[in-house]
Amino acid sequence: MTLPSKNKADNSVALQQNWQVNRQITLASRPVGAPSMENFNLTETQIPTPNQGEVLLRTIYLSLDPYMRGRMNDAKSYAEPVAIDEVMVGGAVCRVEKSLNDKFKVGDLVVAYTGWQDYAVTNGEELLALPKTLTTPSYALGVLGMPGLTAYMGLLDIAQPKAGETVVVAAASGAVGSLVGQIAKLRGCRVIGIAGTEDKCRYVIDTLGFDACINHKHPDLTPQLAEQCPNGIDVYFENVGGAVFDVVMPLLNPCARVPLCGLISQYNATALPDGPDRLAQLMGLLLVKRIKMQGFIVFDDYGHRYNEFSQAMGQWLVEGKIHYREDKVIGLAQAAKAFMGLLEGENFGKLVVEVGPLTLAN
Amino acid sequence: MTLPSKNKADNSVALQQNWQVNRQITLASRPVGAPSMENFNLTETQIPTPNQGEVLLRTIYLSLDPYMRGRMNDAKSYAEPVAIDEVMVGGAVCRVEKSLNDKFKVGDLVVAYTGWQDYAVTNGEELLALPKTLTTPSYALGVLGMPGLTAYMGLLDIAQPKAGETVVVAAASGAVGSLVGQIAKLRGCRVIGIAGTEDKCRYVIDTLGFDACINHKHPDLTPQLAEQCPNGIDVYFENVGGAVFDVVMPLLNPCARVPLCGLISQYNATALPDGPDRLAQLMGLLLVKRIKMQGFIVFDDYGHRYNEFSQAMGQWLVEGKIHYREDKVIGLAQAAKAFMGLLEGENFGKLVVEVGPLTLAN
Repeated sequence: MTLPSKNKADNSVALQQNWQVNRQITLASRPVGAPSMENFNLTETQIPTPNQGEVLLRTIYLSLDPYMRGRMNDAKSYAEPVAIDEVMVGGAVCRVEKSLNDKFKVGDLVVAYTGWQDYAVTNGEELLALPKTLTTPSYALGVLGMPGLTAYMGLLDIAQPKAGETVVVAAASGAVGSLVGQIAKLRGCRVIGIAGTEDKCRYVIDTLGFDACINHKHPDLTPQLAEQCPNGIDVYFENVGGAVFDVVMPLLNPCARVPLCGLISQYNATALPDGPDRLAQLMGLLLVKRIKMQGFIVFDDYGHRYNEFSQAMGQWLVEGKIHYREDKVIGLAQAAKAFMGLLEGENFGKLVVEVGPLTLAN
Repeated sequence: MTLPSKNKADNSVALQQNWQVNRQITLASRPVGAPSMENFNLTETQIPTPNQGEVLLRTIYLSLDPYMRGRMNDAKSYAEPVAIDEVMVGGAVCRVEKSLNDKFKVGDLVVAYTGWQDYAVTNGEELLALPKTLTTPSYALGVLGMPGLTAYMGLLDIAQPKAGETVVVAAASGAVGSLVGQIAKLRGCRVIGIAGTEDKCRYVIDTLGFDACINHKHPDLTPQLAEQCPNGIDVYFENVGGAVFDVVMPLLNPCARVPLCGLISQYNATALPDGPDRLAQLMGLLLVKRIKMQGFIVFDDYGHRYNEFSQAMGQWLVEGKIHYREDKVIGLAQAAKAFMGLLEGENFGKLVVEVGPLTLAN
């Protein structure tokens, strides 16, 4: 596979630096709200030396991704936080500078989680070798790397869009969103992007081929999105949260799927003056813990599998493996009172009303 | 299949009523908060007469279920609301009294959505015939009907519990919860119930065989649940919402599954004095619209499918079907500033930092 070649000039920029030191950007302090320069330190250390089995890597491209904001907090998310004075984490395309590991030789390009620094030593276990055919190595951090895999699996495995469905993509010009929308178009969906500038919206429509793109800073966001989604929203690929989700929420169709990929609007958020936003709390929890929450209406979703169920349950009942208790009320006139009790938890077992006697002669 | 026979005496209660009229319980007015008797009317009408192709049904058992509370509201949920002065909806086991439909004969027992009344006429299309082997016909409204199917599919299809996982079941002695927990035990899970009285908790443990059951009215609910779930919660079968969910939420494990079956604590709720509970709003939306919301962390969840993805995406790139844009920053020293911009949406395309030149001779 040969990928489109980038302008080689991009790669020939001579960076003015001393290659005898390892520059590192470390976490100086934890941000409250948006990070500022004082939260980071640029330090210089010795270039580390690989031992037997290890490789010395030099960073060529460092990926910057929104998830890194979470690692700057003290709270344990799905990964450990970066410690104070530790190097900021991150994926990178690196070149093998020295190798004491049979699997790698000098000059190999790899993807590694070496972080915000020039050099790192690793044992080679977590390294992903770049294919020689990849003429633009930085793509391994994007379209062919983590953001690409995120877009592909989040859309195709979690959301499973069908042709003709309406897919709304937050952060539509971003690393993930731009791919989500294009894949959805390839699957025959109507695709509406949401982005943060007019330039981005034009790019999303003209270059990426979305059907429409709406600027979330526009005061008419709500009616504009409704107008672009006349049949509601079947898939919402969430990268943003907050006010954008609020606008999407009422348009979600029955059986909509919402892959929760990111909540960038919340990453710099501090508690609201009137307490935490509990909707945002729940969504944050679902995201960082990779939780699936799914409403269902049993006959609509599973009516076609009634026979499978009734065979299994019937068997369990016959075998005495399942106990079942009824709370039986006699007389239709008791129904309203019994129902009110049901809502207060006063029943004990399945509540049924015996309305007419089963055995009365016709 | 022969099911355990119930005491026949249950079915021989002679109800004092006039079988020449059709009693109906109708919705007199819409409740605000908990329903009261004045929201219902008991009226008497003529017994309807079937036309060609139709059957006259007499209600034997009426099922009362929490979802009916939603139908009393004016808001469209997943189904239309009951109109004022209309018969309350509901599933029932009915006996065919008259039949002008070849598929049914007098005396047949069927499940039908005839509602809170003695008699109804239907065209037979939505009727489910009860198997002759079902010696306790009311089971068709519970363990072998809608609540049973709900428990079975919600647990096994949506949550897919694995042996050894911890499953927490709300409303554990109820029609659905009691079955969910027993099925989870059959699958080898640790099962913890939550119920509303000490009697129910004892029943859930002693008769249903759950590993533990906690009274949600107990002031120590939070530490008690934590103690019973030393490895966290892998599956939470939600029937309740509100304060019970708040206690469960922090114990949810990574990759937990939360089938949303009901939110009974919310059905009588009116708006909070300080505005709507947005977490409850979101969960209500997921429930009534049968929405799936799922957080994911791409390498943890889909790392094993990287090759599948990279082949597809590589092909699309080569074919020019996917456009990809990078926002490239030059120099490690620019990383912090670029990252701050990323969180504010200032990048345009995938943000990467070119740290070292790719082509520098070693």
